[in-house]
Amino acid sequence: MDKDSLEFSKDLRKISKEIPLNNIKINDEFWSKYIKLAMEVVIPYQWEAINDRIEDAEPSHAIKNFRIAAGLETGEFHGMVFQDSDVSKWLEAVGFSLQTHPDSELEKNADEVIDILELAQRSDGYLNTYFILKEPDNRWTNLAECHELYCAGHFFEAAVAYYNATNKRKVLDIACKFADYIDATFGPEEGKIHGYDGHPEVELALFKLYKVTENEKYLKLSKYFLDERGAKPDFFDMQWEKRGRKDFWQGGINREWGKKYYQTHLPIRKQSAAEGHAVRVVYMCMGMADVAAETGDSELFKACENLWKNIVSKRMYITGGIGSTSIGESFTFDYDLPNDTVYAETCASIGLAFFAHRMLMIEPRSEYADVMERALYNTIIGGMSQDGKGFFYVNPLEVRPEACEKNPTKHHVKPVRQKWFTCACCPPNITRTLTSLGRYIYTVNDDIVYANLYIGGKADINVGNNEIRIIQETEYPWEEKVLIKVGTKEKTKFTLALRIPGWCGKAEVKVNSEVINIEEIKLNGYAMVNREWRDGDKVELILKMPILRMKANPLVSADIGKVAIQRGPLVYCLEEADNGPNLHEIYLPKEAELEACFEADLLGGIMVLKAEAKRISNNSKWKDQLYSSKIKEEYDSINIKFVPYYSWANRGTGEMIVWVREK
Amino acid sequence: MDKDSLEFSKDLRKISKEIPLNNIKINDEFWSKYIKLAMEVVIPYQWEAINDRIEDAEPSHAIKNFRIAAGLETGEFHGMVFQDSDVSKWLEAVGFSLQTHPDSELEKNADEVIDILELAQRSDGYLNTYFILKEPDNRWTNLAECHELYCAGHFFEAAVAYYNATNKRKVLDIACKFADYIDATFGPEEGKIHGYDGHPEVELALFKLYKVTENEKYLKLSKYFLDERGAKPDFFDMQWEKRGRKDFWQGGINREWGKKYYQTHLPIRKQSAAEGHAVRVVYMCMGMADVAAETGDSELFKACENLWKNIVSKRMYITGGIGSTSIGESFTFDYDLPNDTVYAETCASIGLAFFAHRMLMIEPRSEYADVMERALYNTIIGGMSQDGKGFFYVNPLEVRPEACEKNPTKHHVKPVRQKWFTCACCPPNITRTLTSLGRYIYTVNDDIVYANLYIGGKADINVGNNEIRIIQETEYPWEEKVLIKVGTKEKTKFTLALRIPGWCGKAEVKVNSEVINIEEIKLNGYAMVNREWRDGDKVELILKMPILRMKANPLVSADIGKVAIQRGPLVYCLEEADNGPNLHEIYLPKEAELEACFEADLLGGIMVLKAEAKRISNNSKWKDQLYSSKIKEEYDSINIKFVPYYSWANRGTGEMIVWVREK
Repeated sequence: MDKDSLEFSKDLRKISKEIPLNNIKINDEFWSKYIKLAMEVVIPYQWEAINDRIEDAEPSHAIKNFRIAAGLETGEFHGMVFQDSDVSKWLEAVGFSLQTHPDSELEKNADEVIDILELAQRSDGYLNTYFILKEPDNRWTNLAECHELYCAGHFFEAAVAYYNATNKRKVLDIACKFADYIDATFGPEEGKIHGYDGHPEVELALFKLYKVTENEKYLKLSKYFLDERGAKPDFFDMQWEKRGRKDFWQGGINREWGKKYYQTHLPIRKQSAAEGHAVRVVYMCMGMADVAAETGDSELFKACENLWKNIVSKRMYITGGIGSTSIGESFTFDYDLPNDTVYAETCASIGLAFFAHRMLMIEPRSEYADVMERALYNTIIGGMSQDGKGFFYVNPLEVRPEACEKNPTKHHVKPVRQKWFTCACCPPNITRTLTSLGRYIYTVNDDIVYANLYIGGKADINVGNNEIRIIQETEYPWEEKVLIKVGTKEKTKFTLALRIPGWCGKAEVKVNSEVINIEEIKLNGYAMVNREWRDGDKVELILKMPILRMKANPLVSADIGKVAIQRGPLVYCLEEADNGPNLHEIYLPKEAELEACFEADLLGGIMVLKAEAKRISNNSKWKDQLYSSKIKEEYDSINIKFVPYYSWANRGTGEMIVWVREK
Repeated sequence: MDKDSLEFSKDLRKISKEIPLNNIKINDEFWSKYIKLAMEVVIPYQWEAINDRIEDAEPSHAIKNFRIAAGLETGEFHGMVFQDSDVSKWLEAVGFSLQTHPDSELEKNADEVIDILELAQRSDGYLNTYFILKEPDNRWTNLAECHELYCAGHFFEAAVAYYNATNKRKVLDIACKFADYIDATFGPEEGKIHGYDGHPEVELALFKLYKVTENEKYLKLSKYFLDERGAKPDFFDMQWEKRGRKDFWQGGINREWGKKYYQTHLPIRKQSAAEGHAVRVVYMCMGMADVAAETGDSELFKACENLWKNIVSKRMYITGGIGSTSIGESFTFDYDLPNDTVYAETCASIGLAFFAHRMLMIEPRSEYADVMERALYNTIIGGMSQDGKGFFYVNPLEVRPEACEKNPTKHHVKPVRQKWFTCACCPPNITRTLTSLGRYIYTVNDDIVYANLYIGGKADINVGNNEIRIIQETEYPWEEKVLIKVGTKEKTKFTLALRIPGWCGKAEVKVNSEVINIEEIKLNGYAMVNREWRDGDKVELILKMPILRMKANPLVSADIGKVAIQRGPLVYCLEEADNGPNLHEIYLPKEAELEACFEADLLGGIMVLKAEAKRISNNSKWKDQLYSSKIKEEYDSINIKFVPYYSWANRGTGEMIVWVREK
């Protein structure tokens, strides 16, 4: 194979395609149960929640707000200013769910909601219950704080997902009517508002609307919002002055600090470091990548690359978490990755995975898929409990429950997953990720099928005008073997590009039992198996999963002298449940061997890692002393057990650490 | 010497006495310059500040508020609700300063201020400009938040100090009139308010007023405030309900959390752990110790001991700092001593030293003086810059300037001392500590003179009805030798009790060149040199100062695997100025020798400690990688230099760490 022939075009219009979700059927030991939980537990729970039927929980009022706006009930608006988005997030998850698992009752519920939305929409297209009910005269007067376009964006995403599932146009028509109104309101033309939302989201959502409607107006508007962001004078400052310096949130947001918080400190093309609210950053990046790819805007793509590089090489936790402080749920600065005062919001990792997916479609490099996988297998599924009923906002890498309770600097860190939240962003975000997981497995570029994730199931793929089927069978991430079967009606020439993950010590590929030399066909982290495929061809991929002692760059002061254990895509941790309290008293000797061992009865079946380590044994000598120059540390040998990070906090309240001392 | 004969009476009335401040003249290489700074720089600066004459600073308005209340000017109240206390703190420092350094101009300024206070005082005795000018009808309606009795307390302390310096009764009369009014307002009797202040202070201040006036009413009132604290139902909750749930501070204070914040969660006699705002705790403890000692209340003293023990054995930084979180400037829980998100307010360490001093007077045990010394030589003087013009509120043990600026979780930590503060508590608190430093050197109990601190100078002491003079000559804390000369008109039998500090490896005592066996005369950490002293007797004390590698109790997770270096009373640190950036990349080998070396030209002359250590040398291998299992750490040998913690941040902005990795 000639490598040069595979040099990827820098023509950004030649991007990879996704496989339509309904062409993919996941059947996977590891993932299917999560997807099932999302469909059978979380979506129904969410439905009850937005209908105010959860006992012991503050009523959401989300559906009720729409019913009141629709004139079906009387009453007042209740909830957060972005309460509408809870309905959209439910509807989007329903849309994804129906694409793979038709369910007439669920569809009926959704149709009824859509009918209400239709009635609630104003005649000019506007649709936001907070402003309709509470501040009808103040539309678009506080874009920084009031999430108006953010809510619109989530609705557009829901509309597209539901339309894709059902082919029913109604919800799409409501969305387009609203989008048309937004387009008539915002833009560079005189008389329009020259602004954007405080929370990026509408940009990527308008892009989705453009893709499904092919109406270029939405693409143009998305690009406008992106390019206007960070223009001087500052739009949010101007709006603030105009409305008499009134803040929506008590205490407001410091105007200078706020510029980074909202990513308006610089035009986005000039932003080379990820600053401010982490979710906002990655949502902005998604829109940037979409527009860059579609319009062939290499400068915009370069900005995406810069932000990507800054995040993954300087500001990302090993678990794929991002956001180093709870204050502003924000990025801080390069290599500042404290494990205990961390934020690492679940939604931010979801956004990072989505951003990675877009970058991967533009440039099929395994480093993007590596990060997507890291976020998925660690922080994202870690965000949900094993029963689908508890959720983390914050995903810490070091927890002492007593500190969470008694040191207010760590109050935002919870040692157990919470039932639901006043600001219900993370649970529905996990749901939509799980219900759309199939989208992230493959991408197709001309005659190349990229296998980015190893998840069992089948996919019907159109490659170079041929319909083929790819079946994966695997016990990944526990086992090293992935079996791929190709189904095709007639002999078909295409390249099956198999991602060789960054963590993989050594990979082996056999095609119909014939060993392939990977080094000869490796390109940008993929093994490019190009051949004329016949029905029933089998590829056996062995991804060696050595147990890795990961070190952080020494500039990460929080991790100095420590290691994190990783096997395959999974980062591991120590929990008090297995190793007793005061985990910081343990160190892992450099020479200690780690052994992988599957425990079928533990946490739904997990591969645990065991080692002989050392733990301080002479605490009792200290008695009431706090400091001493005389007491020398003594250590006992102990057996320790690591469990996958995603599975922590499913056995009651206890300590947890990812980074373990090594010496 | 028979040890049994020295068993201390548990009769709490038999407490030690202080030496009047004007009987003490400090002449000390180490301390005199600080005292000089306090008198010549800080007090004058403070005078300018309270008179609104500092350029580039918000006007304090503190004197002006009093002038308006006195009818000498018209205008409105400005400043914090406790702005009055700034005037009191200045006046108290002036009082202390005049006791050792008469200054007629300073006294004239003070007298003029006192004249204004007299005019400002209402006819019923009340004196608080915020309530007089701004809320005349709301006196005592929000004791939790409004610092009314706190301000009264600081005024009482000032009045006592100024009266002691000048024997002028006017300020004392104003104070007594106010105290009498408070006594008529608060108390257990029907019709009086059954309450107390949100910020303990008036308790210890009333005690001072009692000591100087011998009016037992003030002692009784002090005891009342202490014992009422924590009674159920909660006084602050009741006031809050009564005033319609109005909060003074925006957002208010969570009512349940607030109970610990204000130390009202339990009656103080039942409090066995230091909870809530650290300054409040130690101010409360001072009053508790005063009243316990004076009234022989052993239950109350037991509560003091419990709180003391909890603080020093579980909640104190090695620098003598207390308060583990900025949120509420509070204690958190046992062994929770984060070095970077720490609070460790200067005022809290001052309160801890004052509390220690009181405990020492009740029970002459060196452990109390050890903590007093630890706080004084590390956090307290560290709170002020070498030029007396900059001050720390927060005294961190680990600083990365970039984190202070860019990680909002650490915004409260400043890498350089600030000029002055809106809430001006710490600078005047340092001033009063320095101007009254002499009080803490000796205590006298019957015929025993305790030398608690080693500070050069002379003291005229009444011991067992004889007047003696003690002269100390020393280069402590740099050098190990303390020379003590006894002056006496006639042969006098008494015990000179020399504190042997906890850090001291081995002490030697010679009396007139005759070696004394310390072990035979040691009691509660003091060498009890009992003899018939003659004029000119000389005691030579050698306090060996080994360089100690201090370890923290292993339950302190923040310090695990690390050492702090201490020599004599001084805790050391590494600064970027000497050791370059990324201090976390350094470790101190277990076998590395540390060498002390005096550098006369550095930071006013300090003993530095030098060692050969290791630093990561292969950062460049990491390039843009954030995590890797392949790159092994490599280390270079480097020379590192430790400087005393108190002297940090006097050479520009840079990193600093106290706890250094060891392996």
